[in-house]
Amino acid sequence: MQKSKLQFKIQNLKYDEKGLIPAIIQDYKSGEVLMMAYMNRQALRQTLATGKTHFYSRSRKKLWLKGETSGHIQKVKEVRFDCDGDCLLIKVEQRGGACHMGYRSCFYRKLRDKEGHIKVVYRKIFEPKEVYKR
Amino acid sequence: MQKSKLQFKIQNLKYDEKGLIPAIIQDYKSGEVLMMAYMNRQALRQTLATGKTHFYSRSRKKLWLKGETSGHIQKVKEVRFDCDGDCLLIKVEQRGGACHMGYRSCFYRKLRDKEGHIKVVYRKIFEPKEVYKR
Repeated sequence: MQKSKLQFKIQNLKYDEKGLIPAIIQDYKSGEVLMMAYMNRQALRQTLATGKTHFYSRSRKKLWLKGETSGHIQKVKEVRFDCDGDCLLIKVEQRGGACHMGYRSCFYRKLRDKEGHIKVVYRKIFEPKEVYKR
Repeated sequence: MQKSKLQFKIQNLKYDEKGLIPAIIQDYKSGEVLMMAYMNRQALRQTLATGKTHFYSRSRKKLWLKGETSGHIQKVKEVRFDCDGDCLLIKVEQRGGACHMGYRSCFYRKLRDKEGHIKVVYRKIFEPKEVYKR
Protein backbone atom coordinates (compact mmCIF):
# COMPACT_ATOMS: atom_id res chain seq x y z
CA MET A 1 0.00 0.00 0.00
CA GLN A 2 1.25 3.44 -0.87
CA LYS A 3 1.29 6.12 1.77
CA SER A 4 0.54 9.73 1.12
CA LYS A 5 0.33 12.74 3.38
CA LEU A 6 -1.08 15.03 0.72
CA GLN A 7 -3.44 17.63 2.01
CA PHE A 8 -6.85 16.91 0.58
CA LYS A 9 -9.00 19.97 0.54
CA ILE A 10 -12.44 18.83 1.47
CA GLN A 11 -13.69 22.04 -0.14
CA ASN A 12 -12.51 20.56 -3.46
CA LEU A 13 -15.19 17.88 -3.45
CA LYS A 14 -17.58 18.48 -6.31
CA TYR A 15 -21.19 19.06 -5.40
CA ASP A 16 -23.84 19.10 -8.10
CA GLU A 17 -25.92 22.13 -9.08
CA LYS A 18 -28.16 21.44 -6.06
CA GLY A 19 -25.17 21.38 -3.71
CA LEU A 20 -25.34 17.61 -3.25
CA ILE A 21 -22.86 14.75 -3.49
CA PRO A 22 -23.88 11.07 -3.56
CA ALA A 23 -22.62 8.93 -0.67
CA ILE A 24 -22.47 5.15 -0.99
CA ILE A 25 -22.78 3.48 2.40
CA GLN A 26 -20.99 0.17 2.83
CA ASP A 27 -20.80 -2.23 5.77
CA TYR A 28 -17.18 -1.94 6.93
CA LYS A 29 -16.91 -5.65 7.74
CA SER A 30 -19.02 -7.57 5.24
CA GLY A 31 -18.57 -5.18 2.33
CA GLU A 32 -22.33 -5.15 1.66
CA VAL A 33 -23.56 -1.97 0.02
CA LEU A 34 -26.28 -0.81 2.40
CA MET A 35 -27.70 2.31 0.77
CA MET A 36 -27.01 5.41 -1.27
CA ALA A 37 -28.07 8.86 -0.18
CA TYR A 38 -27.07 12.47 -0.72
CA MET A 39 -25.06 14.82 1.42
CA ASN A 40 -24.70 18.57 1.23
CA ARG A 41 -21.72 20.38 2.77
CA GLN A 42 -23.41 20.61 6.14
CA ALA A 43 -24.34 16.92 6.19
CA LEU A 44 -20.73 15.95 5.47
CA ARG A 45 -19.45 18.33 8.14
CA GLN A 46 -21.90 16.87 10.67
CA THR A 47 -20.95 13.35 9.65
CA LEU A 48 -17.26 14.03 10.18
CA ALA A 49 -17.84 15.95 13.41
CA THR A 50 -20.12 13.38 15.07
CA GLY A 51 -18.91 10.13 13.49
CA LYS A 52 -22.51 9.33 12.55
CA THR A 53 -23.86 9.63 9.01
CA HIS A 54 -26.04 12.62 8.23
CA PHE A 55 -27.74 13.16 4.88
CA TYR A 56 -29.77 15.75 3.07
CA SER A 57 -33.29 14.68 2.27
CA ARG A 58 -34.30 15.91 -1.17
CA SER A 59 -37.99 15.28 -0.49
CA ARG A 60 -38.14 16.80 2.98
CA LYS A 61 -35.51 19.42 2.09
CA LYS A 62 -33.68 19.05 5.37
CA LEU A 63 -30.68 17.51 7.06
CA TRP A 64 -31.28 14.23 8.83
CA LEU A 65 -29.31 12.00 11.12
CA LYS A 66 -29.59 8.45 9.80
CA GLY A 67 -31.35 6.48 12.54
CA GLU A 68 -32.85 9.49 14.28
CA THR A 69 -36.29 7.80 14.35
CA SER A 70 -35.43 4.13 14.02
CA GLY A 71 -32.29 4.09 16.16
CA HIS A 72 -30.53 2.46 13.21
CA ILE A 73 -27.45 4.65 13.47
CA GLN A 74 -24.42 4.29 11.17
CA LYS A 75 -21.08 4.72 12.92
CA VAL A 76 -18.46 5.99 10.48
CA LYS A 77 -15.38 3.81 10.13
CA GLU A 78 -13.80 5.22 6.97
CA VAL A 79 -14.47 7.96 4.43
CA ARG A 80 -13.31 7.52 0.85
CA PHE A 81 -13.89 9.64 -2.22
CA ASP A 82 -13.48 8.88 -5.89
CA CYS A 83 -11.03 10.02 -8.57
CA ASP A 84 -13.28 12.86 -9.73
CA GLY A 85 -14.08 13.97 -6.18
CA ASP A 86 -17.80 13.81 -6.93
CA CYS A 87 -18.81 10.69 -5.00
CA LEU A 88 -18.22 9.47 -1.45
CA LEU A 89 -17.86 5.93 -0.16
CA ILE A 90 -18.43 5.67 3.58
CA LYS A 91 -17.71 2.48 5.47
CA VAL A 92 -19.89 2.13 8.53
CA GLU A 93 -20.93 -0.05 11.39
CA GLN A 94 -24.68 -0.35 10.85
CA ARG A 95 -26.96 -0.77 13.83
CA GLY A 96 -30.12 -2.65 12.79
CA GLY A 97 -31.14 -2.19 9.17
CA ALA A 98 -30.29 0.57 6.72
CA CYS A 99 -33.53 0.23 4.77
CA HIS A 100 -36.82 1.80 5.81
CA MET A 101 -38.56 -1.25 4.35
CA GLY A 102 -37.13 -3.44 7.11
CA TYR A 103 -34.08 -4.91 5.41
CA ARG A 104 -30.41 -4.63 6.31
CA SER A 105 -29.65 -3.23 2.83
CA CYS A 106 -31.78 -1.09 0.53
CA PHE A 107 -30.56 -3.31 -2.31
CA TYR A 108 -32.63 -6.29 -1.19
CA ARG A 109 -33.93 -7.17 -4.66
CA LYS A 110 -32.14 -8.42 -7.73
CA LEU A 111 -33.17 -8.95 -11.33
CA ARG A 112 -33.52 -12.65 -12.09
CA ASP A 113 -33.77 -12.42 -15.84
CA LYS A 114 -34.13 -10.04 -18.75
CA GLU A 115 -37.91 -10.27 -18.53
CA GLY A 116 -37.68 -8.36 -15.27
CA HIS A 117 -38.54 -11.06 -12.74
CA ILE A 118 -37.08 -10.27 -9.37
CA LYS A 119 -35.89 -12.11 -6.33
CA VAL A 120 -35.70 -10.79 -2.77
CA VAL A 121 -32.22 -11.65 -1.52
CA TYR A 122 -32.47 -10.35 2.03
CA ARG A 123 -34.59 -11.39 4.96
CA LYS A 124 -36.65 -8.75 6.73
CA ILE A 125 -35.09 -7.93 10.09
CA PHE A 126 -37.60 -5.44 11.43
CA GLU A 127 -41.17 -4.36 10.91
CA PRO A 128 -41.26 -0.79 9.58
CA LYS A 129 -44.71 -0.10 11.07
CA GLU A 130 -43.35 -0.78 14.54
CA VAL A 131 -40.09 1.13 14.12
CA TYR A 132 -41.49 4.24 12.45
CA LYS A 133 -44.73 4.51 14.45
CA ARG A 134 -43.45 7.56 16.34
CA MET B 1 -33.54 -16.23 1.80
CA GLN B 2 -37.00 -15.32 0.66
CA LYS B 3 -38.02 -16.10 -2.90
CA SER B 4 -40.24 -13.95 -5.01
CA LYS B 5 -41.44 -14.21 -8.57
CA LEU B 6 -42.96 -10.74 -8.65
CA GLN B 7 -42.79 -9.07 -11.99
CA PHE B 8 -40.53 -6.06 -11.65
CA LYS B 9 -41.26 -3.47 -14.28
CA ILE B 10 -37.92 -2.10 -15.30
CA GLN B 11 -39.83 0.92 -16.62
CA ASN B 12 -40.68 1.71 -13.00
CA LEU B 13 -37.09 2.60 -12.15
CA LYS B 14 -36.90 6.29 -11.33
CA TYR B 15 -34.62 8.39 -13.50
CA ASP B 16 -33.82 11.95 -12.51
CA GLU B 17 -34.84 15.05 -14.46
CA LYS B 18 -31.94 14.40 -16.85
CA GLY B 19 -33.08 10.83 -17.46
CA LEU B 20 -30.23 9.33 -15.42
CA ILE B 21 -29.95 6.80 -12.62
CA PRO B 22 -26.78 6.27 -10.54
CA ALA B 23 -25.21 2.82 -10.76
CA ILE B 24 -22.83 1.60 -8.08
CA ILE B 25 -20.38 -0.94 -9.48
CA GLN B 26 -19.12 -3.59 -7.07
CA ASP B 27 -16.64 -6.44 -7.53
CA TYR B 28 -18.82 -9.55 -7.33
CA LYS B 29 -16.19 -11.54 -5.43
CA SER B 30 -14.30 -9.16 -3.15
CA GLY B 31 -17.20 -6.79 -2.51
CA GLU B 32 -14.99 -3.76 -3.30
CA VAL B 33 -16.90 -0.77 -4.58
CA LEU B 34 -15.15 -0.03 -7.87
CA MET B 35 -16.89 3.07 -9.20
CA MET B 36 -20.12 4.98 -9.52
CA ALA B 37 -21.45 6.22 -12.85
CA TYR B 38 -24.76 7.12 -14.44
CA MET B 39 -26.98 5.18 -16.81
CA ASN B 40 -29.84 6.35 -18.94
CA ARG B 41 -32.53 3.96 -20.19
CA GLN B 42 -30.49 3.03 -23.25
CA ALA B 43 -27.33 2.36 -21.22
CA LEU B 44 -29.24 0.01 -18.92
CA ARG B 45 -30.85 -1.76 -21.88
CA GLN B 46 -27.43 -2.22 -23.51
CA THR B 47 -25.96 -3.42 -20.22
CA LEU B 48 -28.66 -6.07 -19.83
CA ALA B 49 -28.55 -7.08 -23.51
CA THR B 50 -24.77 -7.47 -23.76
CA GLY B 51 -23.83 -8.40 -20.18
CA LYS B 52 -21.25 -5.61 -20.19
CA THR B 53 -21.73 -2.31 -18.36
CA HIS B 54 -22.62 0.72 -20.45
CA PHE B 55 -22.96 4.22 -19.02
CA TYR B 56 -24.01 7.68 -20.08
CA SER B 57 -21.23 10.24 -20.00
CA ARG B 58 -22.54 13.56 -18.74
CA SER B 59 -19.48 15.43 -20.00
CA ARG B 60 -19.31 13.83 -23.45
CA LYS B 61 -23.10 13.51 -23.64
CA LYS B 62 -22.98 10.02 -25.08
CA LEU B 63 -23.33 6.35 -24.30
CA TRP B 64 -20.11 4.49 -23.61
CA LEU B 65 -19.13 0.91 -23.13
CA LYS B 66 -16.93 0.71 -20.02
CA GLY B 67 -13.55 -0.54 -21.24
CA GLU B 68 -14.07 0.41 -24.88
CA THR B 69 -10.65 2.14 -24.98
CA SER B 70 -8.79 0.49 -22.10
CA GLY B 71 -10.12 -3.04 -22.54
CA HIS B 72 -11.11 -2.91 -18.88
CA ILE B 73 -14.53 -4.42 -19.45
CA GLN B 74 -17.00 -5.16 -16.64
CA LYS B 75 -18.91 -8.41 -17.03
CA VAL B 76 -22.28 -8.20 -15.30
CA LYS B 77 -22.90 -10.84 -12.64
CA GLU B 78 -25.92 -9.41 -10.85
CA VAL B 79 -28.18 -6.37 -11.04
CA ARG B 80 -29.82 -5.04 -7.90
CA PHE B 81 -31.89 -1.93 -7.31
CA ASP B 82 -32.84 -0.13 -4.14
CA CYS B 83 -36.07 0.29 -2.21
CA ASP B 84 -36.95 3.57 -3.94
CA GLY B 85 -36.03 2.25 -7.40
CA ASP B 86 -33.74 5.22 -7.97
CA CYS B 87 -30.31 3.60 -7.65
CA LEU B 88 -28.70 0.49 -9.16
CA LEU B 89 -26.08 -1.81 -7.65
CA ILE B 90 -24.31 -3.92 -10.27
CA LYS B 91 -21.98 -6.73 -9.31
CA VAL B 92 -19.33 -7.31 -11.94
CA GLU B 93 -16.23 -9.19 -12.88
CA GLN B 94 -13.76 -6.37 -13.52
CA ARG B 95 -11.01 -6.88 -16.06
CA GLY B 96 -8.00 -4.67 -15.19
CA GLY B 97 -8.85 -1.52 -13.29
CA ALA B 98 -12.09 0.44 -13.07
CA CYS B 99 -10.39 3.79 -12.55
CA HIS B 100 -9.00 5.92 -15.36
CA MET B 101 -6.22 6.98 -12.96
CA GLY B 102 -4.75 3.47 -13.01
CA TYR B 103 -6.30 1.97 -9.89
CA ARG B 104 -8.57 -1.02 -9.51
CA SER B 105 -11.15 1.16 -7.73
CA CYS B 106 -11.99 4.84 -8.20
CA PHE B 107 -12.18 5.05 -4.40
CA TYR B 108 -8.42 4.73 -3.94
CA ARG B 109 -8.11 7.54 -1.39
CA LYS B 110 -9.41 7.84 2.12
CA LEU B 111 -9.56 10.67 4.63
CA ARG B 112 -7.04 10.11 7.40
CA ASP B 113 -8.26 12.77 9.79
CA LYS B 114 -10.63 15.69 10.16
CA GLU B 115 -7.94 18.08 8.93
CA GLY B 116 -8.33 16.48 5.51
CA HIS B 117 -5.09 14.54 5.20
CA ILE B 118 -5.48 11.65 2.83
CA LYS B 119 -3.99 8.25 2.27
CA VAL B 120 -3.86 6.29 -0.97
CA VAL B 121 -5.12 2.80 -0.17
CA TYR B 122 -4.70 1.14 -3.55
CA ARG B 123 -1.64 0.36 -5.61
CA LYS B 124 -1.54 1.55 -9.21
CA ILE B 125 -2.03 -1.39 -11.55
CA PHE B 126 -1.68 0.34 -14.91
CA GLU B 127 -0.25 3.49 -16.40
CA PRO B 128 -3.08 5.66 -17.79
CA LYS B 129 -0.82 7.29 -20.40
CA GLU B 130 -0.12 3.89 -21.92
CA VAL B 131 -3.66 2.58 -21.79
CA TYR B 132 -5.42 5.69 -23.11
CA LYS B 133 -2.86 6.69 -25.75
CA ARG B 134 -5.13 5.54 -28.56
